[in-house]
Amino acid sequence: MNRIDFAHGRVDLSHGSGGRAMARLIEQLFVAEFDNGYLGAQHDGAALPMPPAGCRLILATDSHVVSPLFFPGGDIGSLAVHGTVNDVAMCGGTPLYLTAGFILEEGFPLADLRRIVQSMAAAAREAGVAIVTGDTKVVQQGKGDGVFISTTGVGYAPASINITPRRIRPGDKILLSGHLGDHGVAIMSLRENLGFETALQSDSAALHTLVADMLRAVPDLRCLRDPTRGGLAAVLNEFALQAGCGMRIRESALPIRQEVTAACELLGLDPLYVANEGKLVAVCAPEDADTLLAAMRAHPQGRDAAIIGEAIADANQFVQMETAFGGKRMVDWINGEQLPRIC
Amino acid sequence: MNRIDFAHGRVDLSHGSGGRAMARLIEQLFVAEFDNGYLGAQHDGAALPMPPAGCRLILATDSHVVSPLFFPGGDIGSLAVHGTVNDVAMCGGTPLYLTAGFILEEGFPLADLRRIVQSMAAAAREAGVAIVTGDTKVVQQGKGDGVFISTTGVGYAPASINITPRRIRPGDKILLSGHLGDHGVAIMSLRENLGFETALQSDSAALHTLVADMLRAVPDLRCLRDPTRGGLAAVLNEFALQAGCGMRIRESALPIRQEVTAACELLGLDPLYVANEGKLVAVCAPEDADTLLAAMRAHPQGRDAAIIGEAIADANQFVQMETAFGGKRMVDWINGEQLPRIC
Repeated sequence: MNRIDFAHGRVDLSHGSGGRAMARLIEQLFVAEFDNGYLGAQHDGAALPMPPAGCRLILATDSHVVSPLFFPGGDIGSLAVHGTVNDVAMCGGTPLYLTAGFILEEGFPLADLRRIVQSMAAAAREAGVAIVTGDTKVVQQGKGDGVFISTTGVGYAPASINITPRRIRPGDKILLSGHLGDHGVAIMSLRENLGFETALQSDSAALHTLVADMLRAVPDLRCLRDPTRGGLAAVLNEFALQAGCGMRIRESALPIRQEVTAACELLGLDPLYVANEGKLVAVCAPEDADTLLAAMRAHPQGRDAAIIGEAIADANQFVQMETAFGGKRMVDWINGEQLPRIC
Repeated sequence: MNRIDFAHGRVDLSHGSGGRAMARLIEQLFVAEFDNGYLGAQHDGAALPMPPAGCRLILATDSHVVSPLFFPGGDIGSLAVHGTVNDVAMCGGTPLYLTAGFILEEGFPLADLRRIVQSMAAAAREAGVAIVTGDTKVVQQGKGDGVFISTTGVGYAPASINITPRRIRPGDKILLSGHLGDHGVAIMSLRENLGFETALQSDSAALHTLVADMLRAVPDLRCLRDPTRGGLAAVLNEFALQAGCGMRIRESALPIRQEVTAACELLGLDPLYVANEGKLVAVCAPEDADTLLAAMRAHPQGRDAAIIGEAIADANQFVQMETAFGGKRMVDWINGEQLPRIC
């Protein structure tokens, strides 16, 4: 088959036709870059070694529509891998396989698509997962927005692990793995042309090795979740609702970079609601908190981890914050949308 | 939480925000309709019983961008379930779980979204699979097209099954499970306002029980594939390329409805290239062909099955058709795109 001109070519409808152009794109881009025998078999799906018996199968899925597609610290490709690996990890799972579905807009530069696919491939290699099967669709110009990527992650977790907000009890400690708001502010700065680009990078990263270390230290972890869309506020409100108790955090304990605080003030954002792509929130029994914190701080991705608050008895399931000035503030669910298409 | 007004409401950006509106949509629509404990756990992913040990894990994924969203015989929701169940089945797999990622366009009527989700739920129930985890994103008006749905299917197959075009040998028989072109022509008729709507329906259907019957009858089946985008022509050319041999089919053996032939003539389409969503192509050893055909015909979805040709030795890997008039015609890969967004 002829070589695709990746330097000058653009996506056209024939790349989604099921014909020769699509076969060529799959062969010369996806199979070449993702580079594993499962995808190379080029069947309608992949036949894979079964995860260990006696474990639970972990499944997670995400559709990625981030805009812009490229941003400091990553792009939609690396984000798609990290986001789905992290969702598997938040279930206590060891990720094994990813699937990837691409919805491409007619006219999108093939050079950009290749850059995104290469970034996905690198992120998957680094995370130790294989992108084993996929799909490509093309929509007419004006019916999409460059590239959307849907990824599904498959992994496994020991049957003994029981990570769910329903196990959270009043008195349990809330831990955060690092600085809040880097991803959301990096993207918003770019959108608003604020020139923070060099200073602030997305924190987009795969967290499964951090989670593995945490579970080794505290196998009885109550719950894990990554504060993406809706930020820390959304996670704590979900926890409160599902656990049937309240949550109290301390503003002074929250790790937030000075640049993020400054940018949030300028942009009218609240860092509690800003998306993160390489952070996690954990809840554990109070007697496990120090052990868990030590395990997190011993991992590069948990270096700045902190105990930020605790679950409390509250029939109203409110999330409250003790402010730096000693006052109290409600941290409600976000209403409306402050950061569309952040992931 | 307040009830969503599904009758009059529209998708807005807050439905993808990670906040209260999104939580409400997930709870009142997806969790309510898909109705299973895994999704009900509302975690970042699902923890599931592992498929049987000693089997292979089967994974398949599809992004669906069909336009229009509703068509005679189905809609994007049922199509998304059938398409992915079928991709698992084409690997010889028994489907167990589905994931679903929605990319919604701002302004899309919630009534239509509910109709699509209900149709997905019904199709999943009928196929005996559970939609266990999902994701919802919203893009601004003009950056999407109503609804895109990405589905991933997970299943298992006995380790002994080895379904791959690489096993096809000259002399092997090619079987087709039923009439060609129904899906593509039903959609094109609707788009072109041709008024065939009442007569012609999409063949969209889940084929996994047909495949199970076929594998029971002929466990050594060489290959299976569903002729979706690019139609029968694409499947046969893929087989030829991957098997390193030629393919010869007989026009007179192809089951095609009269309405499809007529519509194709009117629309300038060739039924060999038109998408199907409830048909499969199988290849088996010549001595197994009658047994396989009998097993297919005994299943409601294989009632009109036929042996349509055979693999032949051909270093050029050409696909040829003996025409009804006794001539010969090349059946090349499709060039360009005759039916954009057919699935």
